[in-house]
This record gives sequence, C-alpha cells and structure tokens, in this order.
Amino acid sequence: MANEDMIFGRGPVTEAIRAGHTIDKLIVKSGAHSGSLAPILKAAKERGIAVQHADGAKLDRLAEGGNHQGVIAMVSAHEYSTVADILKRAEDAGHAPFIIICDKITDPHNLGAILRTANCVGADGVIIPKRQSAGINSVVMKTSAGAAEYTPVAKVTNVAQTIDELKKAGVWITAADMDGQPMYDIDLKGAIGLVIGSEGSGVSRLVREKCDFIASIPMKGEINSLNASVAAGVLMYEALRQRCGYGK
Amino acid sequence: MANEDMIFGRGPVTEAIRAGHTIDKLIVKSGAHSGSLAPILKAAKERGIAVQHADGAKLDRLAEGGNHQGVIAMVSAHEYSTVADILKRAEDAGHAPFIIICDKITDPHNLGAILRTANCVGADGVIIPKRQSAGINSVVMKTSAGAAEYTPVAKVTNVAQTIDELKKAGVWITAADMDGQPMYDIDLKGAIGLVIGSEGSGVSRLVREKCDFIASIPMKGEINSLNASVAAGVLMYEALRQRCGYGK
Repeated sequence: MANEDMIFGRGPVTEAIRAGHTIDKLIVKSGAHSGSLAPILKAAKERGIAVQHADGAKLDRLAEGGNHQGVIAMVSAHEYSTVADILKRAEDAGHAPFIIICDKITDPHNLGAILRTANCVGADGVIIPKRQSAGINSVVMKTSAGAAEYTPVAKVTNVAQTIDELKKAGVWITAADMDGQPMYDIDLKGAIGLVIGSEGSGVSRLVREKCDFIASIPMKGEINSLNASVAAGVLMYEALRQRCGYGK
Repeated sequence: MANEDMIFGRGPVTEAIRAGHTIDKLIVKSGAHSGSLAPILKAAKERGIAVQHADGAKLDRLAEGGNHQGVIAMVSAHEYSTVADILKRAEDAGHAPFIIICDKITDPHNLGAILRTANCVGADGVIIPKRQSAGINSVVMKTSAGAAEYTPVAKVTNVAQTIDELKKAGVWITAADMDGQPMYDIDLKGAIGLVIGSEGSGVSRLVREKCDFIASIPMKGEINSLNASVAAGVLMYEALRQRCGYGK
C-alpha cells in the first residue's frame, strides 16, 4: 500500500473518475450493481480502470469503518502542487491570485471542509505545511466532496517563508484572528492569501507577524470563536463577495 | 443515567459551569489538578457542585473514547426551550427575531458547529425537529464549544407547521438551497428564520414550499455545495452583515 491511498463512497469515487485522477483499480462489493454504482462501473470500463470484486467484510476492513457504500478506488498518492503551480494557475485564468493558507489544521474533517469551500469560492489553491497538519488522505478526500481532485494543494516546509515568497509575488496576506480589524474593512479584491489558523491555538506567532492584515469576524454572542472550517468559510465568502461586488 | 447527559473536556465543562447549567456532579481524574483543571475545581467548589475522583480508565469508559481531558460533568438532560421562548427572547432584547431552523441535521458535529455559529451571530434561538435530527447530546455540546448553554434550542414535532406559526408572528422564512436567488439580493434585515437543510438531501419539499425565499450561495468551482455547517455559517454571516450594515 506504499504510495497508495483510498477514496471510498460513491460520490467521492465518481468525482475522482470524472476528474481524471490516476486510479489503479476499483474494489467493488460482490453483487452490488444497483443505483449509483452502475454509472461508476460504466465510467471505469470506459477509462480502462481495473475492477476487482470483494466481499463486504474486505471493503469494511480496507475502509477502516468508513462508509464505503460498496466501492473503494485505490489511487496513487495525492499529487501535490507547488506554490508556483498555484500562482501560474491564477495567471493562466487571467485573475489575481486567491490562495488559502492553512496554518496547522490537524482535523482531517476541517481540512476537507476547507478544501471544499476553497473550490466553491474558486480559489486557485490551498497551501498546507508538511508538519503538524493533516495531509490529503481518504478522510480529507471524502469530506472535501472531491474538491481535492480539482483544487491544487501545495505542501510546504515553512509557512512563514512561503508567505514571504507570496508577498514578493505581489500577494497580500490576511490572517483570520480575533483581535484584528473587521474583515469588511480590509480590501480582499486583489491578489490575496487568506491564512486560517489551527483549531486550538489559531495563527502561530511567526506566521501572524508576516501578515499584512489581521481580519476579525464579528462576534455577537457569548462564544468568541467559530469552528475552524466555518471561520474559513465565512472569510472566504467575504473575499468572494468583495471580488464579485455582491451585496453592494 | 436516565435524564442525564455528560459534558466532557475542559473548555466545555468550564462553559457549562460559567453558564450556570444544572450540574449534578463533576468526575475528575484522580491526581489531575494541573493547568486549566484548577479553576474548574475552584468554580465547582464555589457553586457547591460535588466533585468525585475516578481513575482515567473510568473516565475513558464514560466518555466512550471522547477526549475528556480529565474532567466530565454529569448534567441534567438538556433543557429545551419553546418557539414562544425564542420569540420572547428577541422581544425582550428589543430586536427583530433572528432564528435558525435546522431541517434534519443528523451529524452531531454539524449541529454543534451550527449552534456555535448561531451564538456567534447573536441569533435568538435554534429550532430542530424531534425526529430525524441529532439532539443536544455530549458531542453536540462539545462541538458547540458551550454555545448550547447560551443559545436556546427548541425541539418541534413538525418543522413545516412551526414555520407557519413563525410566519403568523411576522417572521420571514428563507431556506438555503442551490437553485434560489443570490442570498445578497434577499432582505435579511427584519424578523427572519433561516432554514438549513440536511447534509444529504437539503431542505425537504414540504418545508421548502412554506418558505418565503430560497437563498443560494454563489458557487465558482467544480463542487456545487458546501458542508452543511459551513453553508449555515456563510448564510448566517450574510444575514448579520445586512443587519449590522457591514461592508457597504
């Protein structure tokens, strides 16, 4: 299983095939052909993807208790992009870069939800650190609803250093944190990188010091912080609102 | 354990004590007094809450593998509010009602994150159906970061019927769904109820038909929907933006 990862569940496997991801083989529950499995098998046949049948117990073991819905795709390990790829992608699309930087998001459900939202706002890519972060595994893939197939993810050794590179490339960096200025007052229309801090301790000090702006999300209740993926979503959609001129 | 529920983890237990929730007793890991446990024990003493010591294995069993961090609070079963309570709360606060309606959110992590966000935007309450929905259990409590202690939750038999009642009380109902009008074009400033659909199938047909508006969140990528708690967060914050006149 070295250099291999799994994608399981009918929706995520369908997305993986549709996105043209390198799938080594599909493992399908013996006798299961109903409903949404039929188009998956058809697509696999069209693309020459090997299909192997196995009993439900084997799929349960492979998915380690995850909800595989009778189908698992064995894929080559996630192909990470580079920061240069992400900048190039924005240039090719003819728009100012819109980049999400995850500073040590350790919960794969949060990372998956952030990737999904990054895709939904049309971000050019997501940057994650090599250490102290969830990587793109099958849980992230499934929670991202397939977004990890479309939105490039770059893994970097040092987030603070990467921020310096982005700034040299003309990208303005904004971190989400409680004591910043209201996010509505920060110009998020140009080339931007949005930094999302970790679930427990927020944006790390070194990264924070590199940022051009600190954006706060208004808090009107007794609880003074949002779930990391919700905070990321609210900030990304404020950027999208400004970039598209919505709600003026 | 009838009519009892647990809250575990240092942050959630601290919130439960601070919010004055009825705590029957605290169970604390024997020998654990370090860090954030000390103020919890002090607060429990001040409020006359019984403290029982037990070994780590017992806490592990009680928390069923959850991350209890050495402390569990045994609380009376969650005290649900009524829709009338929620409307009264808005009236007492002197503002137009701002209500969140969860139409069959089954994942307790999503419900917890939605409750947390509802508190953060200052919503007056959250309405959930009695059936086909997660209830306020210890996972919801923990994921809500204590918000379930502050923001009232009403459990109703029939969401569609409750929407009729709210409409009679002058509340305008908006559901989040893909094929609606852009959320930025809907007036969310007055008395509003925001309906969040279930993770798998969105807002149910009967509920949808009762709604005054269907709001869509813009989608710019390949994936055409957000995680339920992220979608709820983005819509709630758009309502807050309009209500506070932010970003004009």
